[in-house]
Amino acid sequence: MSSRSVRKLEVVSPVPADIDIANSVEPFHISEIAKDLNLSSNHYDLYGKYKAKVLLSVLDELQGSEDGYYVVVGGITPTPLGEGKSTTTVGLCQALGAFLDKKVVTCLRQPSQGPTFGIKGGAAGGGYSQVIPMDEFNLHLTGDIHAITAANNLLAAAIDTRIFHESSQSDKALFNRLCPPNKDGKRKFSDIMFRRLKKLGISKTHPEDLTPEEVKKFSRLDIDPNSITWRRVMDVNDRFLRKITVGQGPEEKGMVRETGFDISVASEIMAVLALTTSLADMRERLGKMVIGNSKAGDPITADDLGVGGALTVLMKDAINPTLMQTLEGTPVLVHAGPFANIAHGNSSIVADKIALKLVGPGGFVVTEAGFGADIGTEKFMNIKCRYSGLIPQCAIIVATIRALKMHGGGPEVVAGKPLDHAYVNENVSLVEAGCVNLARHIANTKAYGVNVVVAVNKFSTDTEAEMNAVRNAALAAGAFDAVICTHHAHGGKGAGTLVAVQRACENVTQPLRFLYPLDISIKEKIEAIARSYGASGVEYTEQAEKQIEMCSRQGFSGLPICMAKTQYSFSHIASEKGAPSGFILPIRDVRASIGAGFIYPLVGTMSTMPGLPTRPCFYEIDLDTTTGKVIGLS
Amino acid sequence: MSSRSVRKLEVVSPVPADIDIANSVEPFHISEIAKDLNLSSNHYDLYGKYKAKVLLSVLDELQGSEDGYYVVVGGITPTPLGEGKSTTTVGLCQALGAFLDKKVVTCLRQPSQGPTFGIKGGAAGGGYSQVIPMDEFNLHLTGDIHAITAANNLLAAAIDTRIFHESSQSDKALFNRLCPPNKDGKRKFSDIMFRRLKKLGISKTHPEDLTPEEVKKFSRLDIDPNSITWRRVMDVNDRFLRKITVGQGPEEKGMVRETGFDISVASEIMAVLALTTSLADMRERLGKMVIGNSKAGDPITADDLGVGGALTVLMKDAINPTLMQTLEGTPVLVHAGPFANIAHGNSSIVADKIALKLVGPGGFVVTEAGFGADIGTEKFMNIKCRYSGLIPQCAIIVATIRALKMHGGGPEVVAGKPLDHAYVNENVSLVEAGCVNLARHIANTKAYGVNVVVAVNKFSTDTEAEMNAVRNAALAAGAFDAVICTHHAHGGKGAGTLVAVQRACENVTQPLRFLYPLDISIKEKIEAIARSYGASGVEYTEQAEKQIEMCSRQGFSGLPICMAKTQYSFSHIASEKGAPSGFILPIRDVRASIGAGFIYPLVGTMSTMPGLPTRPCFYEIDLDTTTGKVIGLS
Repeated sequence: MSSRSVRKLEVVSPVPADIDIANSVEPFHISEIAKDLNLSSNHYDLYGKYKAKVLLSVLDELQGSEDGYYVVVGGITPTPLGEGKSTTTVGLCQALGAFLDKKVVTCLRQPSQGPTFGIKGGAAGGGYSQVIPMDEFNLHLTGDIHAITAANNLLAAAIDTRIFHESSQSDKALFNRLCPPNKDGKRKFSDIMFRRLKKLGISKTHPEDLTPEEVKKFSRLDIDPNSITWRRVMDVNDRFLRKITVGQGPEEKGMVRETGFDISVASEIMAVLALTTSLADMRERLGKMVIGNSKAGDPITADDLGVGGALTVLMKDAINPTLMQTLEGTPVLVHAGPFANIAHGNSSIVADKIALKLVGPGGFVVTEAGFGADIGTEKFMNIKCRYSGLIPQCAIIVATIRALKMHGGGPEVVAGKPLDHAYVNENVSLVEAGCVNLARHIANTKAYGVNVVVAVNKFSTDTEAEMNAVRNAALAAGAFDAVICTHHAHGGKGAGTLVAVQRACENVTQPLRFLYPLDISIKEKIEAIARSYGASGVEYTEQAEKQIEMCSRQGFSGLPICMAKTQYSFSHIASEKGAPSGFILPIRDVRASIGAGFIYPLVGTMSTMPGLPTRPCFYEIDLDTTTGKVIGLS
Repeated sequence: MSSRSVRKLEVVSPVPADIDIANSVEPFHISEIAKDLNLSSNHYDLYGKYKAKVLLSVLDELQGSEDGYYVVVGGITPTPLGEGKSTTTVGLCQALGAFLDKKVVTCLRQPSQGPTFGIKGGAAGGGYSQVIPMDEFNLHLTGDIHAITAANNLLAAAIDTRIFHESSQSDKALFNRLCPPNKDGKRKFSDIMFRRLKKLGISKTHPEDLTPEEVKKFSRLDIDPNSITWRRVMDVNDRFLRKITVGQGPEEKGMVRETGFDISVASEIMAVLALTTSLADMRERLGKMVIGNSKAGDPITADDLGVGGALTVLMKDAINPTLMQTLEGTPVLVHAGPFANIAHGNSSIVADKIALKLVGPGGFVVTEAGFGADIGTEKFMNIKCRYSGLIPQCAIIVATIRALKMHGGGPEVVAGKPLDHAYVNENVSLVEAGCVNLARHIANTKAYGVNVVVAVNKFSTDTEAEMNAVRNAALAAGAFDAVICTHHAHGGKGAGTLVAVQRACENVTQPLRFLYPLDISIKEKIEAIARSYGASGVEYTEQAEKQIEMCSRQGFSGLPICMAKTQYSFSHIASEKGAPSGFILPIRDVRASIGAGFIYPLVGTMSTMPGLPTRPCFYEIDLDTTTGKVIGLS
């Protein structure tokens, strides 16, 4: 037995409330967890006693050392209740680390605070498979989302203010203000201005040398207000900000404009954080984010607005992942949490890379991808792995009897309403019928060249016969293995059968294969993904055609594709369960996250700002002011 | 000599740029600074290597021990360039701590990030009198302002969503959603609901027992949309959010409403943080914040909306002040930064209280108040000290020759434009004429019973004769002493003459006297403050009369008054320099921050959301991605 920080769980049945389990355990000081990973105190910054930011410099230091196994956790098409993917991810790591004594790091996304106070509650796992302290995990953490909000909104303010100042000033006045004389009367360009000069093909270095035409080109961004795609963000479920009119104050001189807020995790900056690989890379990505076009149709970037450097400064600490721990004392890296429908829904490359070095050969990094394999895993492979160069050996697909019954034709599952009796009584044929959904997720995932392990997240009402049906269907569909997990009720011990993951990692026979190459057209890439959904074709609106044409003209057609599609079906229609096929996938619009590095076609309408119900979670949440403990968080 | 962490400064002339001085010094690990204050590791949480949050539990532990001397730093009526009040505060503490070897803690406000990227730049002091690391001071710090933004906006979302849900639901449907049946079919009130029940005079404890009328009273807040004073906030200079229309999305069914954003430091929650004294007190203040009225005219609070507990949870770490250090290694507590015009502009009571215990008898706590003595010091005394029960011994008034010349009739001083020659050449008579402004600040401050020390923040162009003129005028006006300070150029050594502060603290002969008692009418209080400005009377708009009447009717007339007035004149007209008198002070409107605990009359129009200029500070700001250092921050 190693000297690692392992905590033996005292498991109680029935399983208590999540917050009660979380509060029943005194976490290890995070420096203990760091020590288990061979991190010394100059490798991390403490944020209180139970969180630390692991510094990016660790990557440079460990550059020569070998990686551990890389495991991604996806799921089948979920019900609106969620199928316990985070819980399974955490449970598996508790099994590997605390029960099987392997080196393991769990890589999770940071949750948005919006749902924590809204409908969904927290996202730290559940039962005896949780990240702790769960209140810190679900709330500010180490401030990364707040940094994203600040950076996103500084850029937004810079856009409207620039349009405002350009509207009232001559080219010369603008230029004189942008390059004011210093104390000895000389003008100079600031460093960031050379980026715009270079883009414009102007190689002069002294402001005085610019011709009037160059002065105009340099100073006047001439942003087309109707082309602005950059929206403001807030990490709150505030539905009244979905569509707003700004600039109605008298000082803004009638320059009103319709725009809106998204929830912060939907910001492109969140996607940048998740996909960046270094400080220098982040600086470039933030600078080249496109906020809209000039009236002449040229893309306008954050660096054109002079703000790419400031955005990087705001994000400089956010690039360091946050180290936490599971209930059983295994290490967790929490980092980034991009929306899984309009963005790519995966935690950060940086965290995965650090983790792979820290666990080393024979160790495991388990990283979670959002929603089903059509959403999270597809984007994990084709976007995240493409940018990181990392190669996974095993993909886990989390399934529940509940979701399989729904896919087999069971009644609609609605959050907040009692479950139909079909879901709490044995019904093997419903399960068997629903396995078409699981089978397609397996086939799609296997196509990348990884071994697929199906993990059935067992609920207390699930029966042996139902379990066997899933196991048989999974193996028939080509899964490497299929195992039953009870980590919610038992912690790592309950996920012990996931030793299958170890065998899957050790027995990879194929190379990583992407679904599409980058050098085909945007439409060809969209169509490759659509086929993997079961679609027989794709149709584009006029707007989508126009946008694809523009993206291509602006030189962005070589980017990977990030489909913005419902997570509730392989198709674009949430109610089409199972494994629909033969449908035509409609593309309503196409947008681009140039800094993050993907094109995202919109399949239908995606809400990027959730709302609050009549009785939000916050009614239960309070602080015990005597102990300082959070109560009522779920 | 003690074993304290003292750094000898190597002073260079001319004084280099602030960021270069700040970066030239390797800060002590903050645990060293903590050790100097006899704090052990369980008294604070580290946030990286150079910041720590000092836990509130320190106050309980030191409850029986004696306080040190309490010194407040105010100023004369400033020019738009600022008179170096923060720099003087820091320089004085470097003098007391590093040069005179006294125990000292500097208590400063956390700056808003808006101005850091806008016009003003940072607020960590300047030259050889700075708080370091200055980039961390000026940016996210330990996330307190982000927590305020999150809490403020959660409440805002709760307001609009509640109105929305009430508009489409019957009393019964609302009630059933607010008190849904649990698994065994029983309904129950959540804890926070008992606050509303109590307010309504309903003593029943089971939802089932409420009469239909009680159900209606409990469930339907019936908020009058036109009465809502709660605005959203953002810590960004975003002028286009000053006035906006929300709710224009199709799902919001036409429930549009005009509102706007303030900068985060203008949020009432910031004022609550600054004035609270404990977790339990903060919980109560956050819960009783009034967001508007019901259509029947009753005040609606955060607790009525069910969100007071969640707000407290969001603010639970923000209540702990952040420990940093000066260039010479003396300790600094940074905490809260409420707007100095619409709020009270002082750092937190909690930080001052902790600091007074930590320095102990014979030690010094130096705390800064915003703007001139008419603004910051007046509110320090009548609001902050009234709530804290703390008694200052000495008030420092920072003056500059530049500002005195302006008050003596010098030409207008405009930020960003070169100074008139009057300000950089000797002109004793202008200085002498301007001392009427200083004299009134001295008289007003002395009236509280404290000794007043005038600190002239010397610029390189100021002459001996000009200095003497100020010194003579200050003593004639009743100052305890007047000293010349060169801390910007020399660090603590340059503020060494501020040993006068020690004598001032040791020779207090009078008790603390407030400007007005709380138990007179709102108008009488406003008039007492107006007289101290030199006004001969006050006039109220109809709107102000209406609001005063409503505040009194709602039972809030016993609160102190926080005047929202320009900082550029004793009067309401910014251009009236010197010591104007005989004017009638106009009160345009009267608002209330019930949670923070004050009524704020608006004297003219106060902007609560700054804008960005054509060339904001951010053009210079970037990250050196090789070293990870911030560059260009001023």
